[in-house]
Amino acid sequence: MGTLPTGRVSASGRNPLGLQGCKIKTMYEINETHDPNLKSWVESANDPNTDFPIQNLPFCVVEDESAYSGWTVAIIIGDQAFGFERANDVGLFQQMEIESVIGPDVTDISQLLDNRYGSLVMSGLRKRLVDILKVDADEEDKKLAEQCLRPVGECNVGYSFSIGDYTDFYCSIYHATNVGSMFRPDNPLMPNYKYIPIGYHGRASSIVVSGTDIKRPKGQNRSDAEKPPVFIPCKNLDYEMELGFFVGKGNELGQPIPIGDAEDHIFGVCLVNDWSARDIQAWEYQPLGPFLSKSFATTISPYVVTMEALAPFRTRAFERDPGDPQPLDYLSDENNCKFGGLDINLEVYIQTERMRQENIDPFMISRSNTKDLYWTIGQMLTHHASNGCNLQTGDLMASGTVSGKEKSERGCLLEMTWRGTEPLELPSGEKRRFLEDGDEVIMKGFCEREGFRRIGLGECRGRILPAD
Amino acid sequence: MGTLPTGRVSASGRNPLGLQGCKIKTMYEINETHDPNLKSWVESANDPNTDFPIQNLPFCVVEDESAYSGWTVAIIIGDQAFGFERANDVGLFQQMEIESVIGPDVTDISQLLDNRYGSLVMSGLRKRLVDILKVDADEEDKKLAEQCLRPVGECNVGYSFSIGDYTDFYCSIYHATNVGSMFRPDNPLMPNYKYIPIGYHGRASSIVVSGTDIKRPKGQNRSDAEKPPVFIPCKNLDYEMELGFFVGKGNELGQPIPIGDAEDHIFGVCLVNDWSARDIQAWEYQPLGPFLSKSFATTISPYVVTMEALAPFRTRAFERDPGDPQPLDYLSDENNCKFGGLDINLEVYIQTERMRQENIDPFMISRSNTKDLYWTIGQMLTHHASNGCNLQTGDLMASGTVSGKEKSERGCLLEMTWRGTEPLELPSGEKRRFLEDGDEVIMKGFCEREGFRRIGLGECRGRILPAD
Repeated sequence: MGTLPTGRVSASGRNPLGLQGCKIKTMYEINETHDPNLKSWVESANDPNTDFPIQNLPFCVVEDESAYSGWTVAIIIGDQAFGFERANDVGLFQQMEIESVIGPDVTDISQLLDNRYGSLVMSGLRKRLVDILKVDADEEDKKLAEQCLRPVGECNVGYSFSIGDYTDFYCSIYHATNVGSMFRPDNPLMPNYKYIPIGYHGRASSIVVSGTDIKRPKGQNRSDAEKPPVFIPCKNLDYEMELGFFVGKGNELGQPIPIGDAEDHIFGVCLVNDWSARDIQAWEYQPLGPFLSKSFATTISPYVVTMEALAPFRTRAFERDPGDPQPLDYLSDENNCKFGGLDINLEVYIQTERMRQENIDPFMISRSNTKDLYWTIGQMLTHHASNGCNLQTGDLMASGTVSGKEKSERGCLLEMTWRGTEPLELPSGEKRRFLEDGDEVIMKGFCEREGFRRIGLGECRGRILPAD
Repeated sequence: MGTLPTGRVSASGRNPLGLQGCKIKTMYEINETHDPNLKSWVESANDPNTDFPIQNLPFCVVEDESAYSGWTVAIIIGDQAFGFERANDVGLFQQMEIESVIGPDVTDISQLLDNRYGSLVMSGLRKRLVDILKVDADEEDKKLAEQCLRPVGECNVGYSFSIGDYTDFYCSIYHATNVGSMFRPDNPLMPNYKYIPIGYHGRASSIVVSGTDIKRPKGQNRSDAEKPPVFIPCKNLDYEMELGFFVGKGNELGQPIPIGDAEDHIFGVCLVNDWSARDIQAWEYQPLGPFLSKSFATTISPYVVTMEALAPFRTRAFERDPGDPQPLDYLSDENNCKFGGLDINLEVYIQTERMRQENIDPFMISRSNTKDLYWTIGQMLTHHASNGCNLQTGDLMASGTVSGKEKSERGCLLEMTWRGTEPLELPSGEKRRFLEDGDEVIMKGFCEREGFRRIGLGECRGRILPAD
């Protein structure tokens, strides 16, 4: 708990995670930077509805030629971007490790971390940023910091990381069971599911940032099994609501990452929309898995919420049914069981073309939570490296569709409309089996917990354009 | 045929590919650089056994501090590396497009091409290199070029490309049928196989250059279906003999590549060993495909043989059985049918620890040929981009295991020993079901055709180290 008295953390007077006195080697501890009473002199950060109070400070990369010389790494506070290059130039990072790294050539977070995350650059950075931005900051710091702020709305927001490899997991047992029961009613869940965090390699080049339009892909469709396949625009276009996480520190080829160290290698999280062409997928996916049904585009939110910021929102790992096997040893440790889970709410909204014309607000389709994932992000990462595969700074992993037990918690249309058989009814009177041209999908994520300040992941948006 | 009289190309007096007068928009033409009578003043290039005569000139990246300032792009001629940075410095590329690009910062081929391949940098480069290196070169050129040569054996040879994404196909129908019949005797070939060049995303970070030792991976093994899986060193370690090819010019997201343009986007080929942990694969691969069974390592040969050098070794696309469907329109064009295939021999050798001790030469396990691939590399590339997926300079694609009809043409041990049931007998008296620690796998590739100079792809080697 660092130097923060318990009473200031939890309104109920209890230590919400029971972390006090607990020696956690690899988890990020709750400390004074999570104090819910902290306010910032950046007024918009104190708005109770902001995703980005001073307790959050997610990383991103922004461009604003009037303030910075091109792209710069930044953190978000309220509605402002705080640019690191300028902050360094004015001396705000003096005598910190980051000072020797930041500069005009550092235009994504990978360069900043460069496998030094944890031990060097990041050490103490969050505390320093809170010191600079808190309401009772040193006056000199505040004056300098004001020069580093620009309204996010006036900036271009880019890729936070240069993503080397992208891996997509399949870690919601509710999603896997739902989808499995549509395609294999007798055998919905494969026998490996409860032993392996199932995953597959995704396409890194077609990852785009929130706000990028998505062109409906073409592909082979064999919905009529009596006839040869046809090459046509995708008919069953879907989204998948996922949690993404970025590798901070990598590992050498041949050197697995013990489960106890897993979270040392995770920098932070973002929202991921794993757009999916269901008709293409159904025809192509055997025997080697999804390929073109996914690789046309994947949208990520631009803000990376650090594992440090998420410290108050840790939960127990998924509670398995008594009959389920326990994870094998290489995926088990006490800390992971106690604090490996994440309590992040994920919401999906849709706004159709007609809804925009009629000024109807986006309609919430689902709300799910990452605490329902069968495997923790630490287990995903450790499993990924368990064969010696080298992970690199900036690699993106995603959880797979995050669905819960209830119908309202189903994180994709395939599940929500049960393969199109139960169309979704929208406030405009329209129905949706799958996505139509002009539809915009908006994903949001946020953490709430009594005794802590709400923090958010921002948005992940994309609008469907017609096929050529 | 350019300016080269037919008689000089083909010993039989016929134009071997019938290319004369044929207007081929996207294929590379046979021209004077393929003249089999061309000799070089670099003596080792005239050795009839070399993979690298003047007709080849594959690209690579080498480091030799005594000759070049660190890493440089080079081509191989005989047993020498010809460094581009030095060549540029001494003025050999004057007034060529490449002059404005090459420099000390260009340490892989991606940077050289940078999406300009075809239209700018490469235009005329092959002809210029032949001019410089041919036996009757201009004396001044020769004197300058001598300063750019270093024995390959004295250089470090590195990654030719900075590989963004790696995609592995499954395009040998013999391999797919063999493997399918082991796992699904009733249904060896999936119904999609003859319509789709089946592929999946691979792991880019763990691609290593020939000569890198390969540590046996650990992973989940459930060979005993009665018991829970165990996490142990891989028991059924295998190689896969594949042809790799690199993307030269990329495409924008959302812009497919018409089949007629496909080869404009392919820079050249290499050898790929897609190491495979069969026991891990069998347990993990459903429903999303191979993951950790492949991602521990993939070995590539360091030399990229250009599509230009391969012009004489083009063949018809695979001749389908009369009952087979024809490729859908987006994968069909006349040129692809006539010249889309590649006639490249691929050989796999093994040398065990005991064979090395007893000075027994590597033993050839198989020889197959890429002309037996059911899909051409142009079809693979066009299919990959058909959903709008953006390919980028330096992306690697691989064909999948190249197997032929005959047992001697099976490109992996899984097929060759029929899942271990027919062990391979080695000249040392040893037997192999799968690879054992200390085994070295050596892959070779070469092209031969009457009337042309033999060219080779070099070697792709890797030795198995024990698991930790």
